[in-house]
Order: sequence, then C-alpha cells, then structure tokens
Amino acid sequence: MTLDRSQLTPMANAIRALSMDAVQAANSGHPGMPMGMADVATVLWSDYLKFDPKSPDWHDRDRFVLSAGHGSMLIYALLHLSGYDRPTMDDIRNFRQLGSVCAGHPENFLIPGVECTTGPLGQGLAMAVGMAMAERHLNAEFGDALVDHRTWTIAGDGCLMEGINHEAIGLAGHLKLGRLNVLWDDNDITIDGATSLSTSEDIKARYAATGWHVTSCDGHDFGDIRRALDEAVADPRPSLVACKTVIGKGAPNKQGTSATHGAALGDEEIAAVRQTLGWSAAPFDIPSDIAAEWQQTAVRGRKARQEWTDRLAKSPDGEAFRARMSGELPKLADWQEYKEQLTRDMPKMATRKASEAALGVLTASVPALVGGSADLTGSNNTKTPATTPFTAEDYAGRYVYYGIREFGMAAAMNGMALHGGVIPYGGTFMVFSDYCRPAIRLSALQEAQAIYVMTHDSIGLGEDGPTHQPIEHLQSLRMIPNLRVFRPADALETAECWELALRHTTGPSLLALSRQNLPALRTDADQNRSARGAYRVRAADAPRKVVLIASGSEVQLALDVAEVLEAEGVGADVVSMVCTQLFDEQDKIYRDDILPHVKPSDILRVSIEAGSSYGWERYTMLDGLQIGIDRFGASAPAADLFEKFGFTTDAIVPQIKARLGI
Amino acid sequence: MTLDRSQLTPMANAIRALSMDAVQAANSGHPGMPMGMADVATVLWSDYLKFDPKSPDWHDRDRFVLSAGHGSMLIYALLHLSGYDRPTMDDIRNFRQLGSVCAGHPENFLIPGVECTTGPLGQGLAMAVGMAMAERHLNAEFGDALVDHRTWTIAGDGCLMEGINHEAIGLAGHLKLGRLNVLWDDNDITIDGATSLSTSEDIKARYAATGWHVTSCDGHDFGDIRRALDEAVADPRPSLVACKTVIGKGAPNKQGTSATHGAALGDEEIAAVRQTLGWSAAPFDIPSDIAAEWQQTAVRGRKARQEWTDRLAKSPDGEAFRARMSGELPKLADWQEYKEQLTRDMPKMATRKASEAALGVLTASVPALVGGSADLTGSNNTKTPATTPFTAEDYAGRYVYYGIREFGMAAAMNGMALHGGVIPYGGTFMVFSDYCRPAIRLSALQEAQAIYVMTHDSIGLGEDGPTHQPIEHLQSLRMIPNLRVFRPADALETAECWELALRHTTGPSLLALSRQNLPALRTDADQNRSARGAYRVRAADAPRKVVLIASGSEVQLALDVAEVLEAEGVGADVVSMVCTQLFDEQDKIYRDDILPHVKPSDILRVSIEAGSSYGWERYTMLDGLQIGIDRFGASAPAADLFEKFGFTTDAIVPQIKARLGI
Repeated sequence: MTLDRSQLTPMANAIRALSMDAVQAANSGHPGMPMGMADVATVLWSDYLKFDPKSPDWHDRDRFVLSAGHGSMLIYALLHLSGYDRPTMDDIRNFRQLGSVCAGHPENFLIPGVECTTGPLGQGLAMAVGMAMAERHLNAEFGDALVDHRTWTIAGDGCLMEGINHEAIGLAGHLKLGRLNVLWDDNDITIDGATSLSTSEDIKARYAATGWHVTSCDGHDFGDIRRALDEAVADPRPSLVACKTVIGKGAPNKQGTSATHGAALGDEEIAAVRQTLGWSAAPFDIPSDIAAEWQQTAVRGRKARQEWTDRLAKSPDGEAFRARMSGELPKLADWQEYKEQLTRDMPKMATRKASEAALGVLTASVPALVGGSADLTGSNNTKTPATTPFTAEDYAGRYVYYGIREFGMAAAMNGMALHGGVIPYGGTFMVFSDYCRPAIRLSALQEAQAIYVMTHDSIGLGEDGPTHQPIEHLQSLRMIPNLRVFRPADALETAECWELALRHTTGPSLLALSRQNLPALRTDADQNRSARGAYRVRAADAPRKVVLIASGSEVQLALDVAEVLEAEGVGADVVSMVCTQLFDEQDKIYRDDILPHVKPSDILRVSIEAGSSYGWERYTMLDGLQIGIDRFGASAPAADLFEKFGFTTDAIVPQIKARLGI
Repeated sequence: MTLDRSQLTPMANAIRALSMDAVQAANSGHPGMPMGMADVATVLWSDYLKFDPKSPDWHDRDRFVLSAGHGSMLIYALLHLSGYDRPTMDDIRNFRQLGSVCAGHPENFLIPGVECTTGPLGQGLAMAVGMAMAERHLNAEFGDALVDHRTWTIAGDGCLMEGINHEAIGLAGHLKLGRLNVLWDDNDITIDGATSLSTSEDIKARYAATGWHVTSCDGHDFGDIRRALDEAVADPRPSLVACKTVIGKGAPNKQGTSATHGAALGDEEIAAVRQTLGWSAAPFDIPSDIAAEWQQTAVRGRKARQEWTDRLAKSPDGEAFRARMSGELPKLADWQEYKEQLTRDMPKMATRKASEAALGVLTASVPALVGGSADLTGSNNTKTPATTPFTAEDYAGRYVYYGIREFGMAAAMNGMALHGGVIPYGGTFMVFSDYCRPAIRLSALQEAQAIYVMTHDSIGLGEDGPTHQPIEHLQSLRMIPNLRVFRPADALETAECWELALRHTTGPSLLALSRQNLPALRTDADQNRSARGAYRVRAADAPRKVVLIASGSEVQLALDVAEVLEAEGVGADVVSMVCTQLFDEQDKIYRDDILPHVKPSDILRVSIEAGSSYGWERYTMLDGLQIGIDRFGASAPAADLFEKFGFTTDAIVPQIKARLGI
C-alpha cells in the first residue's frame, strides 16, 4: 500500500518533532540531519525497507545503516515509531543520558535494530559494503529462498569526504554489489559551514567513475524519492541516491544552515517549527492517528518474515543455514592431529607461514571463514586452497582481494561479522594496523568477531626499514579495550592462537606474526597453553633469580639468554607472553605463579620484545628490566638489526648480571 | 636543450641497470617500478624538474616526491646520476644495508634530495599537496621572484587506491593547486597481480570529477611524455598524468607481471635484460658518455638557481624571506604579558579555549603559523583573527578549511612543514587521532614540525559517547617515538605547551585539550614549568605518604584528593604530568625529586588520568595505584561519566587509604 503525501508528511514531522525535542531536552545532539532526512527515511521505511520490529534479528531482514551516526535521533525515532520494543518513549526522553539505550551515537550493543555503531564518519557506509558482501556470499551458498535482502545506508557529506569512502565504494563497485543503496543526504552543509568551504567535487561523477549507478531526487518530494529508490532497486550496480535536502527542514529561521547541525534549536525556534509544521502535539507525544500510520509500516515486513520462515522450515538447507547463522563452530576436522604433527616435526618456520598452515586446516572445516588481504596475499600468507576468490562473478568464493585498502578491508570485515554467517579474517603488514586502527577500534567496541592477520611484526622484517617496522604498535594495540592481541612464538602457539581467535566470538582478535623463521619450542599439544595468556616455557634449573618474559620472535632469544645465565649458575624462568589481555584475566594464583611477586630485589623480571618497552613495567615492575626498542628502526637485514638494537644474548646477559650485581 | 631518443634511451637504461643490480645485490627490493618509470623520470629530470644538485636545500627548487616509495632505487639512481653528492655509487652498492643512506624506502632524514619519507602508500602524494599549498602561500606573500616552483609526484596504483588519495586530491582540486603534477605509473599491476583483481575504477574520470586536469601518455614514448608534461604544466588545475607503462620494462621474461614488483630479478633474468637493452656495462658501472649526459641535466637548474640568488639579493623582501625559511621564531610579542595576565585572571576555561586564546597571541606575531581544522573549527578552537581563510582565491590566507579529511590534513601538514617557511597546526577530536595516526607517525619519523590540536580528550566530552571518547589514545600516542604529547591542566599550562611546541622544530607536538572547563591552578608565569615534562603543583603539608600524578583535567581532581587526605593527616604531593617524554628526558636528580624513588611501601604513587592505565606503572611502580579507564566510555553528561567511572574524590580516597592501610 503506497501512502500519499497527506499521510507521509505528518509521519515525517513526527520524526522531526521527536528529534528536535530530544536534542532540546538533552541540550546536546544533532537535530539538523534527522529533520532534513525525515521525508526520505519515511518513504524508505514505509515502502522499501524489509524489517519486522518483532524480530529485529531476523536473518533475512534488510540491513539499515545510519552512517551519519551523529543524526542518531533519526534511527531512534524510526525504531520507536515503527514498533520496535526499544527505544521506548522514556528511552527517547533520556536521549544521551547515562543508561539510556539512546546514546549520543547509535550503538549496536545497546539496541536491536541498530546494525552497527556509527559516528566515526565514513565507517558506516564501509561496514554496509561488508554487510552487502556477506549477503551475496550467503545467497550464493543458500539461495534466494533463504538469503535475499538489501543493505541501505544514509550517509552525509562527511561520510563521502572521508578517505575510507573511496576505498569502500571502490570495493563495492568492483564487486558489483547491486543490493547496496546509499542515500546521500545532499544538504550542502558541514559543521564548519557550506560544503563549498572545503570541497568542489562532483560526487555523482566520482561514484559513476567507480562503477556505481547514480541518481538524484528532491529529498522533500515523496514521489520523486520513490522514483529514485525504484531506480536504485532496479539497477544491478550499487546505487548512490543523491537526496537534495534542506538541513533542519522545518526550522523556519535556521534550516539550511550549519546552526542546525550540532546544537539544540532552542525553545523559540522549536516553537516556530511547531507553527511551521502545524505540529501541535506536546514534546514526546505522537498523535494516535500518526502513530497508527507508522505502525502500519511494519506490516509488509511481518508478512515477508512469515513467508521466509515457511521457506526456511521447508528448505533442505534449513538446518545448515540455522547452524551457520548461529555462529557455532563446526567440529575442527584434523585439527588436533595437525597440532600433534607440529610437535613431531618441530618445524622452523615464520609464524606467518605457520598461520597459513593452520588456516589451511581451519578453512577446510569452517565454511564461515572468509579471508583476504590488502594486496599482500603472498606476504600475509592468508590464502588457502579452500578459499577461492570472491568476485562479482562468483560470490561463493571465500577469498577477497581487497586491494590496497587496509581501512576499507577492516571496515568491511566488521560489516561481515555483524551481518552474521561469516567469520572474516584479513591481512596486512603490522605497521599498517595504523591505517585500519579506527576500524579495529570499532571491531572492539561493537564486539565484532573480526580476525586481523598482521605479519612482519617487528624490525625482524629487515630491509624495508623504519616505515615498515612496527615499534609502538604491539603495545598500543594491546591498549584497545576488548581487542585480543596474540603474538605467538612458534608454529604450535600460532595454531593455538588461531583456535582462540575462532572461539572468541564477542570481539576481535589480532595475530602479530613474524616475517622471519622461528624455531619450534613446544613439544606438547595436549592443552592450549596460549589460552592463559602467558605460560612458563622453561623453568629455572639453578635457584631462580630471573624471570624472562618474552613474546613471539623474542622467546627463543630469551631461552638463549636463560641458557647463558644457567651456565653461570643463575636460575632463569622463561615465560611466553602470548596475549597480555588473557593473562590479565587469569586468577591471582596463576599470575603469581608465572610472575612471582615476591620482594622486587629477590627475583629480577626482564621483558624482551622487539617493540616499545612502554607499558612493560606492568609485568616487570619498575625495578625490572625492559629490553625493547623505543626509537624508529632502520633498513638492513634482520640479523643486523637485531644486533644493532641489542637483541642478542651478548647484549642482554651483561645487563641482567649488572642488575643482579654479579 | 631537448634531448632526443638516442640520448634518452641509454640514460633511462642506466636507471634500469642500477635498479636491478642494486636489488639483486641486496636480494631485496622492488625493481619493477624504477624500470617501468625510467623513461618518464628521465624526461622529467632532463627537461622539467627544477633542481640543483649542488644546492639540494635551495628554497625555490621544485619538489619531487616519490610517493611509490618502494621503488626507492628510482630516486637513488636519479640523485646519483644527476650529480648529487649522495648517494655515491658505494651507497647504492650498499642499498638496504645497515648504515647506507640508500634505505629500503626513501628517508628524508638520511639524504638531501629526498623531500619526504615515503613507503606508507598514498601519503607521499598527500604530502605533495601540502608542499604545493606551502608554495602558493609563500608565493602570495613573497611573490614570483622568490617563490615560484612546482611539486611533482610519482605515484603508483597503490597510492591511488588508498583512501587518503581521495582526501588529498579533493583538497588539491578544491584549492586549485595548479603547480602540483602527479605522474601516475599506470602499469595495471599490484603485488597480488593485475589491478583488475581488486579495482574497476575509471581513475581518470575520478580525478576529473575532483577538479583535476587529466591527461595520458605512453610512458615509453619520450615525445608523448613531453607532450603530456607540457599539458600538465600549462593547465591551471592540478594535473594527473596517466603514464601507461610496463612494469619491469626491459626484463624480457618478467616485465608486465607482478614478478618484477617486489623481488630481485635473478641473475638469469638480469643477464637477459642486459642483452635486451644492449647494456654491456658491469653492475654499478655507468659508461662515461651516459654519465656525462646525466650530468648535463643539472645545468638548467644551476642557472635558474643563480638567477634566483641574484633576485633574492636584490629583493627588498630578501631578509624577511631568509628569516622565514630559516625557521627561527620571531619575537613573541605580548606573550609574557599574556601569561602573566592569566595568573592574575585565573580563568576557569576549557584548555581548548585556552589554546584558542594562546593562538590568538601567537598567530599575531608568528606569520609562519598556518592553522586549520578537519571541519571542527568551532570545537577545536583553531581559528584566530590573524588567520583568514586560505582559499584558491587567496593563498595568502592562513586558515585551511580542511573538510572532513583528518588523514589528508595531517599529511598536508607534514608536506607544509617539510617544505619550510610554514609551521602548520591542525585540529580534530582526539579520538580521531586514529584517523590521522599514520601521518602522525610520519611526522615523528620525518622530524617534521607539525602541531596537532586534539580536543575533546577524554570521557569529559560527555554525551557523544564511546565512539568519540578517547581511552587508549593518550598512552598509545605517547609511545610513538619522537612525538611529544602535551596534556595541559589549565590555561597557563596550555600557553606553556604551545610555546614548547613552537620551539620544538625537530619533530611534531600534540596538544590534548579538554572540552570541559578547568579551573586555573598556577599563580606564577616566571618560568615555563611544563618544559620539564612534570612538576610539583602542590607539596605535601603533613609528612608525605602519597604522590598523586595526574594530567590535564585530572590535576584538579588530584588536588581535591590531596586536600581530603591532608585533612586526615596524610601528606600528599600532586604532580602535573604535562608531557611524559620531556619528563623522561630530565636528569635523575630532578626525576627522583618529583617522583621519589624510595622503598615502594614508604610512599604510594597514584596516577590519575581519564584514559588507559596501561603504561602508568612506569611512573607509579607496580605497587602503586593507577586510576584510569580501561573500558570504552558511555554517553552521558561529563559529570555523570566522571562519577560512573570513578573519577571523584569519594571513589579515589578510599582506594588510597586501603593501600596505605589506614
């Protein structure tokens, strides 16, 4: 049932009223965008978006991403009006207050119907690309009957100006993600003023150059909006719909200016809006006829979901689909056998190669794993026989050639993880974790299971020099809340870390892997020792005087140092610190056993890691010794660099002895 | 003098030979790009680039940026062949070895003629935009006689695929930087294989959409290259020259494939190249006639520099120009007076507002200061009366509306700083330091004086919620080598930090500033106390039992805590940790005075900072107490958040007393 102007206008005005009143009550927020896009959103919700408020997690729902997340009142209003359980009107009254699900920016972990956390500009659209990828992938596997939905995004000028926009739309255009539609709030205004202050770009021409279908509409003309959305739906390419709008539409004195962007309108202007729109209802009061019209928008989706549920019940793939979407891992075939083989072979190999070997086994038994690399496939060792290319011609493929788009890759991975049915992993060089850092942070905040394969994890990469050598990266990644950083020391630890990453479904994991070969250390595979974050690789023979704490490529060095010390009668433990976060979560008994906390002068703790030493005092104590590198690296073969920067037994042992006074 | 094909071909082959032989000797590196772009580079160097090898720091030289930095042998070969003192042939022989100026990627701090450090893709081109901005700005101030040069960049497919490319060219197109020319090595190959694996973009159309002039040429046809470069020079817009090339050109069996991209060609293929090119000289041997032709390329520039030197000598602006380019600061008018006024007024204000006030004074007396913001001018408080807009119509302006382009802004700032004559500062929200982090790292690595104004530096920003609240950012930025992170506690400290940032010419500074108001603490302006990194704000009255170490907005909280403790007879120092890096550089006597290092149980050290606690053990010792926030924030008014996350005297004092056992 297509609604007419007399019905749609008051529905849109309900969004405007809620938005301006909530922002006013909080005295904080962004009324301009929801008021400007109210008409477009009303049409989208009424006639296009496939959703069922009573089943916000329905797998075949359309995904709606408010990339311009500062306009959060738009989605809160839409969810409330169309009949979702939350937000309630009380939630909206408490917009931006402690404990309200109506946070300043939409948070996926607070409220069903918010598909992802947005606010950091550009990333919503880039996550939508990942959602659209996941949809096509699952469609290729399970067919139209079970997977057949669209991804819709509302994006502002900021989202389109951010660099990640280029990466995201390049990927979407290349992959011909025709079920992705971006509704651009084309209002000519940014925070600083007119967009003409900072850009002269022909955005539509740029999108067209990237393989997108482009159309425009008057964002305040319901018929024209429908025509444009019909075009977008019909076109096989991803679509940009430029919706020409007036920011803050309805505010007679402020609309069309940046004054409506990020501040409450004020009581006077709000009164003027009420007059202009003929909106006489009190704040947070929706007239019952308008509320009823809004409730009707859910009818289409409810019917669609019932039909889908019937199809699922009858489908021979139903059980497989349900299992896949549940996120539960299938049995890992050949996995224990693989690990035991490692204890027999004791291979000397780079942990990036060990990661490839582990992935070979895992991708064979976990179809949800979809890999890729930002143009470093042969260096990150992320491709396996089971993962054929994911292309516009074959969405069933499981390996994405992301191109030189680290940030776009990471954001797409978030979108895939949030869509469900896919466990994305992707590789780049560790130093370029900086390029994807904003998306890694969002993985953590959104509790999204994205797995980062970061190779070339220290000066040990050698000749590429300081631009490519991570220094501060390990420690600064470890600080991101809810991100697990793993740095395995050999092939078996690498396998253990992969298993932990796979089983950690409520957040991202990052594997820091060596370019250079590392010897095998472990002779046992009976339990996952990495699971406790740190464990003793070697216990002191002579009376313990030193605990050496190392990670990754430096664990072997620590063992060498221990051997020299023991030969001189100095007892030395060696601890492999695989994941500081997991170690911090262990009980005190375990932590005190691994890092005995007796009087500092009795046992010297020494950290050895080819990265920033900042922060290692947490484990060594201030009186300990931190062997690290707190300057930029240099260009040379790895062995020369380890020597230059003091990562040798000859350099380390005397420092320890000096501290011990022997 | 225009050279013909018979001269240019062997000159270009000299580049090819040096590149393949150096990579082979190192058994590491990227021969494909230098071999592919050898013809284009030879034409550029011979007939277009304005340079004088005997004066690599000549202010009016053209800037040449090898954005595709992995092809570093191209610039090493060009510098050597055209007569720069370095690299010598021995330097080239030692390509990628410890101590060679011929590092894996070009490093500006190792070798004159390398204008900036490249390798992290996309950033070279984005820095070139900043150089071109600085050129136009200084031209507007000092005229054509003194400042009149071009900026040339060689960029690969990777540079163009990176998100920052969109930000950089959007800015350049908007600002009509016609003296910027990008030579795109259009070879259809990336590391993973054909570009068609990952992109379908019409790059030329995209650049045209962004306000660029676009042309193409056959990158192996000298006449066609000249035609295209002539067009680029003539057009008033920035130019993209798509140079269609064959990667690894000259390698008969590998050219045109990704096999030439990032690995030595091997002895067999190298022999085949020699045969194909008719290059019979031994490795690292350049036939004297070809060497002589190359030396001739410098004649044009030498003459131009002599003429410029004459103009400078005669110019009434000569002295001002010299002073400006020397980087020395003029006298800071009204500065001491401003600081003293603060001690009298004791204003309660946000440090972002204090920054605006300080900048108001500083921009009035330091014309080199060119500010801006990534579309948060009113929030970052970066605009001052002295800084009128820098626009395509008025390059004399000193305030850049960077748009929603944080990374592009930071990279442009690097370019400006490296160009010289400009001290760039730019603002965004602290949480979006993640968006510019790769460029902040390059500021530090390149020793470039870029000043970052990062406001909204903690949960204290309030209602915008966890996407906008920095947690790990302060500590993880402090880990970047050579970056000074300042977090001032009041208006006077803010002024002191600005002064330190201005005087720190060999690296970047970052100011972390509050959104919320902070009371004035300091009553003295006679010396810059922030210069030592940390200092005692308050000394214990009762016998000292506690040292509270806080920064920024938490210093006042620490003072409040101290007051409560003192009332109970517990003596407490309060230390303002303004800049950990500067504190770490102080002598032991000072450090031990501020943070007395007696037996840990005697004096309890407590850090208080509304950010990650990870790393604070360096200052508190393990037995100390770290008050911080190690989870994501939430959306609410600031006061509610500080209470929720335990930043109140009520929450902190009992923890301290428990540790003290009282």
